[in-house]
Amino acid sequence: MGTKEYLQMMREIKDCTFATLDGEGRPATRIIDVMRVEEDGLYFLTARGKDFYSQLMEQQFVSVTGLTKNWEMLTLRGRVKRVSQELLTRIFETNPSMNGVYPGDSRNILEVFCLYEGQGEYFNLSETPVYRETFFLGHPAEHKKGYEITDACISCGICAGLCPQQCIDAGEPYAIRQENCLHCGLCVENCPAEAIRRR
Amino acid sequence: MGTKEYLQMMREIKDCTFATLDGEGRPATRIIDVMRVEEDGLYFLTARGKDFYSQLMEQQFVSVTGLTKNWEMLTLRGRVKRVSQELLTRIFETNPSMNGVYPGDSRNILEVFCLYEGQGEYFNLSETPVYRETFFLGHPAEHKKGYEITDACISCGICAGLCPQQCIDAGEPYAIRQENCLHCGLCVENCPAEAIRRR
Repeated sequence: MGTKEYLQMMREIKDCTFATLDGEGRPATRIIDVMRVEEDGLYFLTARGKDFYSQLMEQQFVSVTGLTKNWEMLTLRGRVKRVSQELLTRIFETNPSMNGVYPGDSRNILEVFCLYEGQGEYFNLSETPVYRETFFLGHPAEHKKGYEITDACISCGICAGLCPQQCIDAGEPYAIRQENCLHCGLCVENCPAEAIRRR
Repeated sequence: MGTKEYLQMMREIKDCTFATLDGEGRPATRIIDVMRVEEDGLYFLTARGKDFYSQLMEQQFVSVTGLTKNWEMLTLRGRVKRVSQELLTRIFETNPSMNGVYPGDSRNILEVFCLYEGQGEYFNLSETPVYRETFFLGHPAEHKKGYEITDACISCGICAGLCPQQCIDAGEPYAIRQENCLHCGLCVENCPAEAIRRR
C-alpha cells in the first residue's frame, strides 16, 4: 500500500495517540482525532490554552500511533506546522461531534495543525509471520530500524533456527526478511560470529 | 473511581500507546499490550533487541494512553523499572496470543517492565459536560494542569458566558469546575482583568 492509503487508515481509526515532550523533556501523550487527511498530510486540532498547543508550536514534531479494528498498528512521526484556520469550518462539518465540545463561536479557540513530513510504519502483529512496511510523507530523511546480517556470517544457521518468526533465509550471508522481522534481537544475541548489526 | 479501577480499565483496553524518546530526544510511540495490572503497577513486555527496550532502560519513564470502547481516555505517565522475568510464564498463560508471536523458548528474549509510580488522567469527552479526573500510582510529585481564577477577578462574568463547557461558576472570585474543564484557554484569552492563571 502507499502513503495515501496508510493516511486514510489513520483517518478511519480517527482516535490516535499523539506524543510530544512536556516542559521537563519527558514524553506526554493524549488521544487526538485525525480530522482530515489530504495528500499533503494529516490534519488535527487543538486549543490554544492546552499544553499540547504550546508543545507543538515549540517542538514542531509529533509521533502519532493508532490501531485499526483488525489490530493493525500505524505510526507516523514527523514535522508539524500550524495552518490557516480557514479549514476549521470544513473540519467541523465533517466531524459534527465537535459541535458538542466547542459549540458556537467557542470553536475559534482551536487551531489547525498539519503533520506534513515524516516517516510511518505499518505493523501487523496478527498475521503469521508478522508484517511491517515503512512509508514516507513528504521527503524526510529515512530512518532504518531493525537488524541486518553482514558478510561476517559463517552460515551456521543458528539465527534462522531461533527466530520466533522464522524470517531468516539461508545463504551466504544469511538474510533477514525485513518485512517479517520483530526486531526482537534474539539472532543478534546468539550469533557466534557477531555478524548481525543494527541497520 | 480509584487507581485500581483505572489500571483495570487500561488492562481491559489492553492495546495502549507507549511513548518514550528516541536517540535524538524526539517522541517515539508504538502499541504495547498491558499484560497485567496489580496494585503496585502496570506490567508490559518488550524484547531486548528493540529500540523501546534500550529507551526504557535509559529513561526509566514512559507515557501510556489508551481509549475504552466508550471513548474514555486514560493516560498514565511515570517511572518504569525492569522486573524479574519470573512473571513471564504467568503473563504468557493469561495472554495466550503471545505464544504465536514468540513460540517456545524464543520468549526468553522478552523482559518484563512495571510502571510503578506516576500520575494518571481519566478524560471522558463524550459526556456533557466533559469529565476528567486525576489519579496517582505510588507517590509521585503531583502535577496540576489547567487554569484557576484568582482574586483579581472582577466578577464580570465574561469567562462564564464564553466557556464551551459552561463549567465556570459565578462568585467572588468566579471558579472553574476543574473536573469539567477542557483546558482550552478561551476564558484566559478573554478575561479583561487578567485574573486567570495556570494552576
